[in-house]
Amino acid sequence: MSLHLAIVGSGQLARMMALDGLPMGIRFSFLAEEAGDTRCVENLGIVVVRDPADDAARLYQKLGDPDVITVEKEHVDIELMRAFAQHCPVHPNPDALEKFKNRLNEKRFLQSLDIPLAPFLSVSTAEDVDQAVATLAHPVFLKSQEQGYDGYNQWKLTAENAAEIKQELEFPGNWVAESFIPFEREVSFLAARARNGDVTSYPPVQNIHRNGTLLRSIAPALDLSADQLRLAGDYLQRMFQAVDYVGMICMECFVHEGRILVNEIAPRVHNSGHWTSQGASTSQFENHVRAVLGLPAGCSEIHGVSGMLNLLGTTLNAQEAVDRHTSLTLYNKITRPRRKLGHVTVNHPDRQTVSARMDALQKWVYGD
Amino acid sequence: MSLHLAIVGSGQLARMMALDGLPMGIRFSFLAEEAGDTRCVENLGIVVVRDPADDAARLYQKLGDPDVITVEKEHVDIELMRAFAQHCPVHPNPDALEKFKNRLNEKRFLQSLDIPLAPFLSVSTAEDVDQAVATLAHPVFLKSQEQGYDGYNQWKLTAENAAEIKQELEFPGNWVAESFIPFEREVSFLAARARNGDVTSYPPVQNIHRNGTLLRSIAPALDLSADQLRLAGDYLQRMFQAVDYVGMICMECFVHEGRILVNEIAPRVHNSGHWTSQGASTSQFENHVRAVLGLPAGCSEIHGVSGMLNLLGTTLNAQEAVDRHTSLTLYNKITRPRRKLGHVTVNHPDRQTVSARMDALQKWVYGD
Repeated sequence: MSLHLAIVGSGQLARMMALDGLPMGIRFSFLAEEAGDTRCVENLGIVVVRDPADDAARLYQKLGDPDVITVEKEHVDIELMRAFAQHCPVHPNPDALEKFKNRLNEKRFLQSLDIPLAPFLSVSTAEDVDQAVATLAHPVFLKSQEQGYDGYNQWKLTAENAAEIKQELEFPGNWVAESFIPFEREVSFLAARARNGDVTSYPPVQNIHRNGTLLRSIAPALDLSADQLRLAGDYLQRMFQAVDYVGMICMECFVHEGRILVNEIAPRVHNSGHWTSQGASTSQFENHVRAVLGLPAGCSEIHGVSGMLNLLGTTLNAQEAVDRHTSLTLYNKITRPRRKLGHVTVNHPDRQTVSARMDALQKWVYGD
Repeated sequence: MSLHLAIVGSGQLARMMALDGLPMGIRFSFLAEEAGDTRCVENLGIVVVRDPADDAARLYQKLGDPDVITVEKEHVDIELMRAFAQHCPVHPNPDALEKFKNRLNEKRFLQSLDIPLAPFLSVSTAEDVDQAVATLAHPVFLKSQEQGYDGYNQWKLTAENAAEIKQELEFPGNWVAESFIPFEREVSFLAARARNGDVTSYPPVQNIHRNGTLLRSIAPALDLSADQLRLAGDYLQRMFQAVDYVGMICMECFVHEGRILVNEIAPRVHNSGHWTSQGASTSQFENHVRAVLGLPAGCSEIHGVSGMLNLLGTTLNAQEAVDRHTSLTLYNKITRPRRKLGHVTVNHPDRQTVSARMDALQKWVYGD
């Protein structure tokens, strides 16, 4: 029997999961939040645009009675996911998704598991802003609890600009304030957990952000001690067990003065794992699909060193981009400023070669 | 500008080329020979079913004015390909395709390049059959010059059964008779030639056929001497240069008493290269697409040892087939006896492990 996986979301992550699952005979359908934004998954399966009049039973039927439902994003309607779970398995499960949907809940959840993270405060009123500025190390990042990603809905708060930023905000609101960590490096840890609890990890990835959006990744990240790696694996394991997690997860961390501080959890495939399509035996996309469908993960062994450069608001064509060690992935999106339109990966046995090629690509694409 | 590649053919090879080209933003269209046999390429681009009333200009237009046209099979209408070449580049070029379409022409072409092959005779009349039986070492294989593949349109001829087989044939006909080579091993050599002449080779593959159809492959093939490898590369180079070849090619050979004898050339991606999707940095499908579009080939480095088992007339589902080192590829075809419906690949650093797993898979799928 051919398996059918429905994905909540219709962006590039849904696209790449489908493109990696289709060859093995898996059928896909997609639940899009709004009409018109479904180009990424065009032709890859049934696309259902959510109609507020439809209840979960109707949506489940429109999606074609899938065997399993998963997500490509953390901002999902948790009650809908719970209702879907009456019809088929939902992975990651709705309780797990709920932990990671809201930034404040996520931080409290991590804290409850003794996972180290930057100091933070819940912010709702103007007084809370003042208290955050007074009690957290500067600068302070003020972030909305939900819907914040890629640098949107974030403010850098100092004693000097606090009054001005308060003018911009509507109180009461739902924010988290956290101390900026003057990190040496940003790294992410990606792993898939199967239904039977088996964990398949990829090597750590080093990331460079720009304006709050991932710009570049290189894997494997260097200079992490055995202790740091063990701790990171342990943090993931604590989360996995606390919520009986199934699927790919990405744990974004800061490395600061020898410590690993968790910044953010993505309960899904993640941009910092895109290099696995070219650089690992099994991609994060295939391994997410396998895990949520109850299949064993594929081998995550890597082949040399991989770099990934996001194409943000701009694109390349194959004629310009590809060479012996460089691959291009495009998402079939309409160009908009800052929008993630595709990515380029470089794979080579030699790290210096990868870095040099990544620098050249970045300079060529972004002029710096 | 997004590139558009049209493929003559609508089977699993077209499917796999499209699935590997779509992520890099390439658009596809397909020319199907007959209606109804287009499930492999469903949703992957425009599918045009050939209508005898359409000339090349009309077909080119129906295909959406592609930038380049290629093929997934050798049995193509050469005059149509020549007419297409008035509209856009056709790779491999029609003259090259013509050399490999007809078995007799192919053997004469190889002979003209001093490439060793089994002794053969052109057979048209009943007397030719007798002469073949009398002058070629037994058994003799009688094969139709065109349309013969996977063991179809082939007869094993001996002094004893010659009279009987002659009864089955309609004279005059177009056949080739060749001496059976009691080969020790069958190996194939796969390479992509770019438009600028650069050649990217995969390691040799060892193949096992059953009833004339490929059953299993393992790569890299063992025990080929440096001399044999050099010779094989040299044979490919002679062909490439003789016809200014562009794209993937597969050279199927017998190894017999230390010699490499060429059995058959496939001017396209080939079943014995399917393992490259999981076992090499760049698959044969992506490299064919790259080559014919004028892009440089991707790295063909392999990762460990790969095995491939064809699913002939039977299929598996992901729940049964996949594990940490095993992948499943299905072609979305209707099941028919002996039909190629999909394949399973095993990839692992250790050769014994791959062989043992392949044996187990074969036993499980075919009962032996």
